[in-house]
Amino acid sequence: MERKRKFEAIFYPKSLAVIGASPDTTKFGTHSLNTLIQFGFKGKIYPVNPHTTEILGLKSYPSLKDIPDFVDLALIAVPAPAVPVVLGDCAAKGIGAAVIYTSGFSETGKEEGLKLERKVARISKEKGIDVIGPNCFGIYCPASNLTLPPGEYYSRESGNVAFLSQSGGYADRVCRDATGWRIRFSKVVSYGNACDLNETDFLEYLAEDHETKIIGSYIEGVKNGQRFLQTVKEVNQKKPVIILKGGSDEGGRRAIASHTGALGGRKEVWEAFFKQTGAVRVNNLEELIDSVLVFKHIPVPCGRRIAIIGTGGGSAVESADACERAGLSVPALSAKTMEQLQALLPRVGASAQNPIDLGNPWTSPSSYKKIIETISTDPGIDALITVTWQLPFFYVRRQLLWSLFQKVIEIPVAINKSLRKPLIMILCATPTEVEMLEAENEWRKIKDRYTAAGIPIYQSVERAARALLNFVTYHEHQKRIKHTRRTG
Amino acid sequence: MERKRKFEAIFYPKSLAVIGASPDTTKFGTHSLNTLIQFGFKGKIYPVNPHTTEILGLKSYPSLKDIPDFVDLALIAVPAPAVPVVLGDCAAKGIGAAVIYTSGFSETGKEEGLKLERKVARISKEKGIDVIGPNCFGIYCPASNLTLPPGEYYSRESGNVAFLSQSGGYADRVCRDATGWRIRFSKVVSYGNACDLNETDFLEYLAEDHETKIIGSYIEGVKNGQRFLQTVKEVNQKKPVIILKGGSDEGGRRAIASHTGALGGRKEVWEAFFKQTGAVRVNNLEELIDSVLVFKHIPVPCGRRIAIIGTGGGSAVESADACERAGLSVPALSAKTMEQLQALLPRVGASAQNPIDLGNPWTSPSSYKKIIETISTDPGIDALITVTWQLPFFYVRRQLLWSLFQKVIEIPVAINKSLRKPLIMILCATPTEVEMLEAENEWRKIKDRYTAAGIPIYQSVERAARALLNFVTYHEHQKRIKHTRRTG
Repeated sequence: MERKRKFEAIFYPKSLAVIGASPDTTKFGTHSLNTLIQFGFKGKIYPVNPHTTEILGLKSYPSLKDIPDFVDLALIAVPAPAVPVVLGDCAAKGIGAAVIYTSGFSETGKEEGLKLERKVARISKEKGIDVIGPNCFGIYCPASNLTLPPGEYYSRESGNVAFLSQSGGYADRVCRDATGWRIRFSKVVSYGNACDLNETDFLEYLAEDHETKIIGSYIEGVKNGQRFLQTVKEVNQKKPVIILKGGSDEGGRRAIASHTGALGGRKEVWEAFFKQTGAVRVNNLEELIDSVLVFKHIPVPCGRRIAIIGTGGGSAVESADACERAGLSVPALSAKTMEQLQALLPRVGASAQNPIDLGNPWTSPSSYKKIIETISTDPGIDALITVTWQLPFFYVRRQLLWSLFQKVIEIPVAINKSLRKPLIMILCATPTEVEMLEAENEWRKIKDRYTAAGIPIYQSVERAARALLNFVTYHEHQKRIKHTRRTG
Repeated sequence: MERKRKFEAIFYPKSLAVIGASPDTTKFGTHSLNTLIQFGFKGKIYPVNPHTTEILGLKSYPSLKDIPDFVDLALIAVPAPAVPVVLGDCAAKGIGAAVIYTSGFSETGKEEGLKLERKVARISKEKGIDVIGPNCFGIYCPASNLTLPPGEYYSRESGNVAFLSQSGGYADRVCRDATGWRIRFSKVVSYGNACDLNETDFLEYLAEDHETKIIGSYIEGVKNGQRFLQTVKEVNQKKPVIILKGGSDEGGRRAIASHTGALGGRKEVWEAFFKQTGAVRVNNLEELIDSVLVFKHIPVPCGRRIAIIGTGGGSAVESADACERAGLSVPALSAKTMEQLQALLPRVGASAQNPIDLGNPWTSPSSYKKIIETISTDPGIDALITVTWQLPFFYVRRQLLWSLFQKVIEIPVAINKSLRKPLIMILCATPTEVEMLEAENEWRKIKDRYTAAGIPIYQSVERAARALLNFVTYHEHQKRIKHTRRTG
């Protein structure tokens, strides 16, 4: 309960002091203040600055103690050497938590920065004030219209995905990149150097947070390896924990040291970590978002036997190769399914084997529907991937064929809910000419249709296969644990 | 010379007969005829159809022998059982080569189809008529405004890249997808089941074709393994041969059998093939196009020591990880370079180590220029990758910051020619919301600026690193061969 109350003040503060904002709009603190106002933060905002009485239309206070109200959370954006004093002032005012934006601490690799960070940590501990940062962007929580990252354009809608990030830039990019895929967040935390609250603290909170169903994270190094491992292991059994571990080799490790002062840890240690915890390992932000899509849209565990439905032999081959390279399987269909398919497919140029080749690019909507439904009943198949590269082909011939294409593309949207197996859509990326921008617009509209219908959609089979494999592997791990528990 | 003359008639025919076109515009033959007319084919076109006198405004002939002229090339688009007779007629008319569009041969896996294909091959041999196909799209050659694939929207411009494809659909997709990257083709061949002219025949021709500098290909299986290996080995020393080998596992192999009737060959055999020939192996069309971009734009061999210049710690870490995962290295810069960089970078939040973190997203154009130039003189660095994810960040704030962004983005374009090292640009993909379509338009315009300036540009470091590694590995192989020859 204590923990819960503490974090509530961080994610749902009723009042927020911004220390370091000024009438100079190029300053970081001022930028954040502006963002908060534009984003419609629901609590009260108190700018603090000794040299002015008003900032961006808000009454400004010379010091924290002049604020005639309690304050839940402080945002500190003053130069590094001034941070310890300001943090002390926050504690004196009775503020329970502070986000320290400022850089120039342990990540500099210099003695001075290290000392300063230790001092901040000591004040935090002695005065009992929780610190997020330094060298971070802090919190984005749409439910309270709170965004400390530069998020005036982030979604105002809440969702069930949380994202924990050592990197501020990544917290920002995830919020923006995920929007188009209709991924919405419960909470996003950029915690930087983690001199006080760290990845494990937030993970423990998110494990119990009812708003959060899926947890993504970007980790460079952890403060307490054993505690983190144990926590991930436990939390991952309740909610999938997807981890992008940054800094695996020489250059990457050099980068994390200068980024958040983290020690990356040896490669083998992390490999063992993922094996033990069963957390989902991803290699980059794209794969993280791609994987979240599967967890979000596919409600129940599924196996790795995939049926591919596409058009054209080359595309069928590449799709099967991509699935098999990722570690999925593309098994033969049952004799019964193949027989049924043969009756539905063109006599020449098609293939009723898995991968299924529809033959010509203009399948009729009714056959397409029957084909998908037939395959979904094959007991040897766990999930269906449909591959559509034809958008540009039809788009340039739109006076003749576009309406047919639109009818075909609506079929999976219409039948997805009644299928007994998960369906994943590949709608290949459009050509990159400026002249094809309107085709890109059509691509985006179709993407929205599928996303709204609960169908994960990707630009390539490779990306889909990687994401699906992550999902399958997660559930295989869960099953193994349960089995071990029963028999062990 | 004989070979050259033979292929000239295929790629630059002065006259072409289309057998199987009809007034019914839904027929494949008619569609091709229409495409040829729209694409402005430079030679004469003779439709052949016993039931009509005019098709799409062209005089039609009841049979081949009624054409009062010589014919260089025939396009055969009649049902499979009629193909042998038509091919015989072609030979009787003295036509030297025929593209057989029709499917329904060995790729069906049925005895009937196999027999029919053997018959076609026999006629080809006995009557001395070269056959491309069956089950293929044939030739696209912009220099003669010839396109037998559905290419009325392909580029009319010629270039120096050739593409050989067992798959018709892939020939079509490569032509379309490459356009936006300003890749232009000398010749594209879709040769399907290859019952007569095969991959090796075309490769031998392209090796000597002055228009062709880079050869890409999509191969499912080959007719004569030893001859193909020997030819690739030789040609690859003169011009890079990039091969997408389709069908590696169970599902993929099943797909190629039903696609072009090819036997895929064991995995290990292909691994040995790539090792012996030094041909560039790619996993999918995207990687093929990405790799062509490096070969096209980077004129001289380069090593694998990469400097990364980006903004933000997370991005720096991910970029270094992506390069190192691909097999490139991200080494430390020299002490001298680091010292010079430190004077150019912000004091806090930046990093002068490799990967270089510019610190804040709004670098000044003049510092950006000096930073790139400084790094390019480091003797321990072979190539530079600049990473820019900021387009959407600046785009949503365009009233304040867009003009600054545009100035920064112009720096590499302005200095690329004078740098002594290759430079590669990453301009991250834009968010996928419909509302961000105009940002996508800006992305495409910048992509065009870079492509015109001879800078390979990608949407992610992962893709760039994979392509660059292919380029580096190709040249390492070339060097090894030369060394062996000198010392052996």
